[in-house]
Amino acid sequence: MPDAPFIALFTDFGLAGPYTGQMKAVLRRAAPESDVIDLFADAPTGDPKAAAYLLAAYAAWFPAGTIFLCVVDPGVGGARAPLMIEADGRWYVGPDNGLFELVLRRANHARVLAIDWRPEKLSASFHGRDLFAPVAARLGLGEIPAHHAHDPIRHPARPDDLAEIIYIDHYGNALTGLRTSAVPPEAVLSTDSHRIAQAATFSAVPPGTAFWYENSNGLVEIAVNLGRADATLGLRIGSPVALST
Amino acid sequence: MPDAPFIALFTDFGLAGPYTGQMKAVLRRAAPESDVIDLFADAPTGDPKAAAYLLAAYAAWFPAGTIFLCVVDPGVGGARAPLMIEADGRWYVGPDNGLFELVLRRANHARVLAIDWRPEKLSASFHGRDLFAPVAARLGLGEIPAHHAHDPIRHPARPDDLAEIIYIDHYGNALTGLRTSAVPPEAVLSTDSHRIAQAATFSAVPPGTAFWYENSNGLVEIAVNLGRADATLGLRIGSPVALST
Amino acid sequence: MPDAPFIALFTDFGLAGPYTGQMKAVLRRAAPESDVIDLFADAPTGDPKAAAYLLAAYAAWFPAGTIFLCVVDPGVGGARAPLMIEADGRWYVGPDNGLFELVLRRANHARVLAIDWRPEKLSASFHGRDLFAPVAARLGLGEIPAHHAHDPIRHPARPDDLAEIIYIDHYGNALTGLRTSAVPPEAVLSTDSHRIAQAATFSAVPPGTAFWYENSNGLVEIAVNLGRADATLGLRIGSPVALST
Repeated sequence: MPDAPFIALFTDFGLAGPYTGQMKAVLRRAAPESDVIDLFADAPTGDPKAAAYLLAAYAAWFPAGTIFLCVVDPGVGGARAPLMIEADGRWYVGPDNGLFELVLRRANHARVLAIDWRPEKLSASFHGRDLFAPVAARLGLGEIPAHHAHDPIRHPARPDDLAEIIYIDHYGNALTGLRTSAVPPEAVLSTDSHRIAQAATFSAVPPGTAFWYENSNGLVEIAVNLGRADATLGLRIGSPVALST
Repeated sequence: MPDAPFIALFTDFGLAGPYTGQMKAVLRRAAPESDVIDLFADAPTGDPKAAAYLLAAYAAWFPAGTIFLCVVDPGVGGARAPLMIEADGRWYVGPDNGLFELVLRRANHARVLAIDWRPEKLSASFHGRDLFAPVAARLGLGEIPAHHAHDPIRHPARPDDLAEIIYIDHYGNALTGLRTSAVPPEAVLSTDSHRIAQAATFSAVPPGTAFWYENSNGLVEIAVNLGRADATLGLRIGSPVALST
Repeated sequence: MPDAPFIALFTDFGLAGPYTGQMKAVLRRAAPESDVIDLFADAPTGDPKAAAYLLAAYAAWFPAGTIFLCVVDPGVGGARAPLMIEADGRWYVGPDNGLFELVLRRANHARVLAIDWRPEKLSASFHGRDLFAPVAARLGLGEIPAHHAHDPIRHPARPDDLAEIIYIDHYGNALTGLRTSAVPPEAVLSTDSHRIAQAATFSAVPPGTAFWYENSNGLVEIAVNLGRADATLGLRIGSPVALST
């Protein structure tokens, strides 16, 4: 079964520590045919809002059938419901805390299910391992654990595209929550201190120059050729950007 | 053979660099049926004592048959013996430097074997790749490499539960070497500067408040709701904590 | 087919972010039999020269047939050609920017092919995912994508062994671009501030003492017993070292 669906991990666990490894141990035992892909282990920490824009942009690259195991869950152990969402042929498993707002808003067809299934032993702080991973594995086998239809908490005040930095990568590039489809190429992006024009790619601007470009997943990304945009421009997750033309 | 045993990696190699990758290359070739799980790549660096409490707590979660490839080995290239330990149905492979003290002490049944097998080519500094990984792979196939019975160096002065910080995770949570089974819920934990009470989970205390709780592997863990315990409380690996009631 | 070739990743993507995960998703779908090995995700960032010495030293450890997917590509989106190189039975895929200079120079037999194949959709900034990974996967299946013979840009002025720091590992050990085969054991290494003698391994020198030794891949590596060489000696990637006897 080489085409068993991917199970893609989208978490804020960080790269260190035992969390991802224990989740993978659960997945390997329960759904051995599915390839597990580390998409993000460093989604914005405890920030389901920023993470929601990142998830929607990156999930779209994956084939139909992919199951996203999503754990940005600062309210773990509290009252938020555990969800399974089917949206345009992909599955998403995680907490009802706004993390899926943009996936839902951009989907042509979606259904939201609250997970009724519970494991024999559920820790207070690691539902990723104890609840969400077993559910993702079952979905990977083509089964849908016990559930009921659910109206998730929606966040209508959030914009369709977020004019903020939502992620800083290893190179210091700053990803915004803006899709390039929503921004004309001639648009100028302004941070607190800089005005930034579009360029096709790094080598199109002189070394040390900031520019924005369409990244490989369709987001407006700010970079500095042969430099770090985060340090040069003073950007971090949550920094606002303004659009003008 | 979907139920070939896990080989779980417990090292202080860090996440970067070629070390884990080269060990996995050895494991994939020699024991292709075994799933390799990254448990900790950031066990306390060069600190077999703290690592011993972490290993004992996290190994217990894995199923019988699991093989732990354990490399916290500041004395690599020196005289310490290479070990294989079978304890309550799990295998542990690594150096005789105290790393297995708590596993041995808590086991109902254990046997300790010194590894006599040597590879054709043994580097002075990377026994993880050249010696311990091939041995773990052989155990994964159900074979036991050449060995003799061995009395490991024991550390009787170490407590059964360690009232120190043994690990700081990505969220800044501080894990102690205390099992919750040894600490009553009403106990107060004192650091150099703070007194910390128990709570069930993050959302049970106000934002910014420190608390301790039973983590998902049975250890007493110190956290701050929506904050970082390490920064707020000035904790790092080795920081002492005191218990009172 | 347990002996399908390894696909080894050698990139400067860093450990965080979605880059390695997306590349692996491509590889898993296109070459499911090949084990993917994370060799370096933290090769010297945007530094194909230092990376070239690291790659040549570490690739030599892998078996013939291994395919190295190499992305240290600060000129992505610019004019540099995409390459496939077969050298002494191993394949290398990546940009024509000097990254393969030492592999080529040390090879007994090599052929360099420019990749003519292009994907349907090629992003401007992520050729690792869109171009190099599909090519590596095809090589993993024993196929060679469309190509023509190519004369790569050569760098004859670079030395055969580089007397500079090319990598700092998790322990603070500093790897040079010098092979021990080119350095007599009695040689003294000088940094800007220190003179460093050879030792067999860590425990052969007192705690806190710097020494150099043959690392597990044949490079001259500078370390401090129970300490960090980078901090103690003020070393970073690019720091020069001098040899004397």
